[in-house]
Amino acid sequence: MARSKATVCTWLYCPGLLGCFLLGFLAGWFTKPIEKTPNSSDVYQNVRQRLVAEMKAENIKQFLRTFTRLPHVAGTEQNLLLAKQIQDQWKEFGLDSAELVHYDVLLSYPNEKQPNYISVIDDQGNEIFNTSLFEPPPQGYENVTVAMKLLSFSVQADLVYVNYGRTEDFFKLEREMGINCTGKIVIARYGKIFRGNKVRNAVLAGAQGIILYSDPADYCAPGVSAYPDGWNLPSSGAQRGNVLNLNGAGDPLTPGYPAKEYTFRYKVNEGVGIPKIPVHPIGYHDAEVLLRAMRGPAAPDSNWKGSLNVSYNIGPGFTDNSSTRKVRMHVHMNNRITRIYNVIGILRGAVEPDRYIIFGGHRDSWVFGGIDPTTGAAILQEVVRSFGKMKMEGWRPKRTIIFASWDAEEFGLLGSTEWAEENVRVLQERAVAYINTDSSIEGNYTLRVDCTPLLYKLVYNLTKEILSPDEGYENKSLYESWLEKDPATENNSYPRINKLGSGSDFEAYFQRLGIASGRVRYTKNRKADKFSNYPVYHTVYETFEIVEKFYDPTFKKQLAIAQLRGKLVYELADSRVIPFDCRDYGEALKGYSNRIYKLAKKHEEQLKTYKVSFDPLFSAVVNFSKAAAEFHRRLEQVDKKNPIAVRIMNDQLMFIERAFIDPLGLPGRKFYRHVIFAPSSHNKYAGESFPGIYDAMFDIENKADQHKAWEEVKRQISIAAFTVQAAAATLKQVA
Amino acid sequence: MARSKATVCTWLYCPGLLGCFLLGFLAGWFTKPIEKTPNSSDVYQNVRQRLVAEMKAENIKQFLRTFTRLPHVAGTEQNLLLAKQIQDQWKEFGLDSAELVHYDVLLSYPNEKQPNYISVIDDQGNEIFNTSLFEPPPQGYENVTVAMKLLSFSVQADLVYVNYGRTEDFFKLEREMGINCTGKIVIARYGKIFRGNKVRNAVLAGAQGIILYSDPADYCAPGVSAYPDGWNLPSSGAQRGNVLNLNGAGDPLTPGYPAKEYTFRYKVNEGVGIPKIPVHPIGYHDAEVLLRAMRGPAAPDSNWKGSLNVSYNIGPGFTDNSSTRKVRMHVHMNNRITRIYNVIGILRGAVEPDRYIIFGGHRDSWVFGGIDPTTGAAILQEVVRSFGKMKMEGWRPKRTIIFASWDAEEFGLLGSTEWAEENVRVLQERAVAYINTDSSIEGNYTLRVDCTPLLYKLVYNLTKEILSPDEGYENKSLYESWLEKDPATENNSYPRINKLGSGSDFEAYFQRLGIASGRVRYTKNRKADKFSNYPVYHTVYETFEIVEKFYDPTFKKQLAIAQLRGKLVYELADSRVIPFDCRDYGEALKGYSNRIYKLAKKHEEQLKTYKVSFDPLFSAVVNFSKAAAEFHRRLEQVDKKNPIAVRIMNDQLMFIERAFIDPLGLPGRKFYRHVIFAPSSHNKYAGESFPGIYDAMFDIENKADQHKAWEEVKRQISIAAFTVQAAAATLKQVA
Repeated sequence: MARSKATVCTWLYCPGLLGCFLLGFLAGWFTKPIEKTPNSSDVYQNVRQRLVAEMKAENIKQFLRTFTRLPHVAGTEQNLLLAKQIQDQWKEFGLDSAELVHYDVLLSYPNEKQPNYISVIDDQGNEIFNTSLFEPPPQGYENVTVAMKLLSFSVQADLVYVNYGRTEDFFKLEREMGINCTGKIVIARYGKIFRGNKVRNAVLAGAQGIILYSDPADYCAPGVSAYPDGWNLPSSGAQRGNVLNLNGAGDPLTPGYPAKEYTFRYKVNEGVGIPKIPVHPIGYHDAEVLLRAMRGPAAPDSNWKGSLNVSYNIGPGFTDNSSTRKVRMHVHMNNRITRIYNVIGILRGAVEPDRYIIFGGHRDSWVFGGIDPTTGAAILQEVVRSFGKMKMEGWRPKRTIIFASWDAEEFGLLGSTEWAEENVRVLQERAVAYINTDSSIEGNYTLRVDCTPLLYKLVYNLTKEILSPDEGYENKSLYESWLEKDPATENNSYPRINKLGSGSDFEAYFQRLGIASGRVRYTKNRKADKFSNYPVYHTVYETFEIVEKFYDPTFKKQLAIAQLRGKLVYELADSRVIPFDCRDYGEALKGYSNRIYKLAKKHEEQLKTYKVSFDPLFSAVVNFSKAAAEFHRRLEQVDKKNPIAVRIMNDQLMFIERAFIDPLGLPGRKFYRHVIFAPSSHNKYAGESFPGIYDAMFDIENKADQHKAWEEVKRQISIAAFTVQAAAATLKQVA
Repeated sequence: MARSKATVCTWLYCPGLLGCFLLGFLAGWFTKPIEKTPNSSDVYQNVRQRLVAEMKAENIKQFLRTFTRLPHVAGTEQNLLLAKQIQDQWKEFGLDSAELVHYDVLLSYPNEKQPNYISVIDDQGNEIFNTSLFEPPPQGYENVTVAMKLLSFSVQADLVYVNYGRTEDFFKLEREMGINCTGKIVIARYGKIFRGNKVRNAVLAGAQGIILYSDPADYCAPGVSAYPDGWNLPSSGAQRGNVLNLNGAGDPLTPGYPAKEYTFRYKVNEGVGIPKIPVHPIGYHDAEVLLRAMRGPAAPDSNWKGSLNVSYNIGPGFTDNSSTRKVRMHVHMNNRITRIYNVIGILRGAVEPDRYIIFGGHRDSWVFGGIDPTTGAAILQEVVRSFGKMKMEGWRPKRTIIFASWDAEEFGLLGSTEWAEENVRVLQERAVAYINTDSSIEGNYTLRVDCTPLLYKLVYNLTKEILSPDEGYENKSLYESWLEKDPATENNSYPRINKLGSGSDFEAYFQRLGIASGRVRYTKNRKADKFSNYPVYHTVYETFEIVEKFYDPTFKKQLAIAQLRGKLVYELADSRVIPFDCRDYGEALKGYSNRIYKLAKKHEEQLKTYKVSFDPLFSAVVNFSKAAAEFHRRLEQVDKKNPIAVRIMNDQLMFIERAFIDPLGLPGRKFYRHVIFAPSSHNKYAGESFPGIYDAMFDIENKADQHKAWEEVKRQISIAAFTVQAAAATLKQVA
């Protein structure tokens, strides 16, 4: 540099040429770009549009068709073959790499030679009624046994009907009706909450076994035929599904660590969350036989009645003429440590390769996976193909995108959790966001979004750019149809967005690691449609045909979801400033703190007696909102040309969600570490806000030691207040 | 930019001026700096030298003099005044800010009206001998009571002599000598291990109380006079010190969270690590009276004998003629939640203000703090002054430096731990390193360094640049005198560096948060000098005069330590690439894994029976070393002009230490989360490598359930292997 300065000086002695030189100098100075911008604004806009234009409904349909011909249960040969097929396609599509990553986890399969069933036993010990061993498979598909994750059991007892098996159902039984479930087999209808919570409640109530069935009230829509003539659940349909209470542990034998070859494993009887009683799902055809015979008090109210033609008596046991009859459960599962395979694909970032956007969904299914997960897995495939196309044309995102096809989600989110455990050190330092791609439709009415408040604005903005796939909303945006069909309860000028709970693979990323996460899908009409989930959920009737005939014949809804998921990934990966808005987190925290205080106010007397104050929490929330507003003001002023200055603020954005993680975890749930959100203790599927405080106050009026109980509430308020303060501090000027 | 391009085109039609223009253009292009480099190489070298030249022995002496005139016990008015004085000086010196940050923590003071003492009681209940209520203060200083952190007790029992009160001492008593300490008061000599471990061992042995005394064998060097004529401990000297087993929790009432106004507090009887028996320290003058009267078997071997003129009988109880006499402990402490104050000073970084180097040491002392901590606090002051000078001359470090004067270290590292707890979210994402500045001399023989392996190379390099302050080493480097006087055991071509244990304020930063840390000081001759620590440690005789007269009359040793600490901070804050070498971590891991395997091999039979393999750990260590070597190769090739590329690798360097942190913590010690290092379970001061495995194997041959015990060893090996693998993965190419 010293030399070029000397050159300038020499030239200055030649006055005639000076003007020329100066002009040249200035031109050189000003035309030289200051920073190489790998995505100029043009290219940027271009890729954004081309990426979405690249995605095709027909491709999604073909992926769905080819991926659902056979069952893809985790740990089976078929599912490994599918993994390899996906891996090959990802390489073909142009990803930088696509690898199979395996873990050896505890899976549980039905014993082929000894299928599980339920009997009614007479006083001679004869089995006078047995439930089906199989669901009759749809035409063109093979026989499949009903699998539940369990140990081997054979128990016999009187039956008690426990409605949905929710906490409040058991409270009603025990506290209002005086019915004791100890030693009984309970029968619960599916719906409302995660089945694992039903099982846990049954165990807490002392039951010896639990039968789960799908009541037509919850799994048949009025006026709709049963599959294959319509999308309702046939009477033989039995919903599979794991019944573990893992609380985020992943593989039950290796909690906290990846299930690799060298990993220490607990014994199966020491494993996390494995129920110690038999569980078996049956169809309503079989359930009706059992329920019809029951004696005891009638259903306490209409909420306890399904729509079978029985009176829903509670029991225990059968009516007078068959009162000596018992119910016997025959449940024999093979527990095996089994190898599972994730497919992990990488599209390396051009500018900040050490910043990761993860786009993952599971590949394994209970049977054919026609909806769950393949309407999501097909989208994953189409999104990878589209990104691959852009990359092969010379583009790269600013940040790295990691694509993941998870295995063994159905057995407890195992593939995604083990991978998170193995990569925890890099993920906690480098992961910007996790977008889930499980089932893209669970209905065909409107959009459903569950995500961190950081993503609200991005979701709103992107849905405005996507055309609504809904009939009657031609030329309107997805945002418009969504807003009209499902406005938020608190503020109906925005569409509803839900809290993240659990029940899919984002769990480890969000609830344990504090990586900003989101999931989007098409859903039913929550106000009009009273059935739980979609009727054939987790049965053999979940096929390609049900999607093609009933749910999304044009595949336009899946395409809209593909576009939205793809756009989320794109914007997170390629925007210069990470598109998070922390002011929305401030607003959300305000709402949650008001809500929890409202709950507390029901105990006004105790709040005084035990000196319980929510003020520190309120004041922390105010501080957070101030810091967030101030942060965004500074963000507008940051020198976008200074890559370090931008990265510093991006790091602050990336680490906001992480700031809500407490390494000590929630009481009794050490792998749920997010202080603001957790899966509800009463329903894993639902998200609970300020879960520590909520759980400490739950049913507090019935706790024996009131002083101790309210001290725990105070402790939880203190933890929440500290956490929000600490998160606010991360948003302040860094020094 | 489009406009200037048009201008260029117009000019090109004027051929005569074209050459000129082109030359000008090129000159403009090439003279424009590509990146602003706030520290050009010249300035860099310059500040490095000027900073060190700025530090003066005389200044350190003056700071030591003025800071040690009064006692500065945590929570007292004097110590708050000193905090304010330091804050004012830091502002004057030019720091960007200097704030007092307070916490309300549980402290414990002696009851002025009811001083603590020990009596011998005759069978009439008369106190026929009482220990001193006070240490006679040195001339010119006031009376000071002896404080220990305790509850209120008055217990009476027979006495048992337990040597140093180490684990092995109690094993010998119980297993070889058949002496049961249940219900007894034990008397232990100070030394070898942290006093809190002695207390814990006494509690585990069932003792009702524990008396600690300083034996001349451990606190008097031969041929040296007692203070004030020499530096030996007077017979009346009683070592203060906390006896908590906090295991990194900080304030006992707010474990895991900062002790702010709004924080939930446990009751004192629920507090972490507070001993449930009385503890009292006495001088050897008093101890001799007690020991002389003791009956029972003689000291089992010479290791059990101190150098008092008694036979060190074990007890229990006194000899025949006084066998009815008992010992009574009168211990009445005031436990108070008390406000403490850290001083936090900031020198903002010019380039990466969000990267922090922390330089902290405590300010509170037990009495005058002549050595502990003020020989460190004086250095902190001189280092701040020197950095402030550079800053006022226009310089700033690349990264932010945080200076900290901690409070209440003596009560269990409280000030530093609470601040770490309050700032945990930003520290874990932004802290590059922590350098401790507690006492700079505990002897005057040679350098002692305890640090993370990441800092080995930096310490070696910097000590080569500092002149040795040792007599007879004129014109030699500190490195040379250090190497000659204390070569490493394993490889004597390097000077010894020790593992970090605990006992000073780096603990929360290193053992809980995984921030690369180090401490350096002058020490005694470990081979020749058998006394524990320095004799007057934690007594009233720790004065300015003892330093000035005996330890470091020229203050050259303290200056050398100031230079080394200051240089460490400077290089960490201002080097473009963080000066960590992860290859040395690989080497260290290799050594530690070999060592733990050697310990395991003592149980060769069991290793076979229980199928215990260390192979996964060895293979992880090999992977780490490979990844480290590969990382440094890539680091050499990184484009130093690309600030993002450099930051990516710096982030990898910063997060290596963090990668060894397991949020689940060590068994029973949840705030010790570093998998490679922990304070020894038997001596808090010492560092243990692979502490999980070590503790699982400790005394394993005496465990009842061998299968279970070895399963735990396997589990710990698995955790260690995973952690090392995970750390290796952080060093790989980021995508």
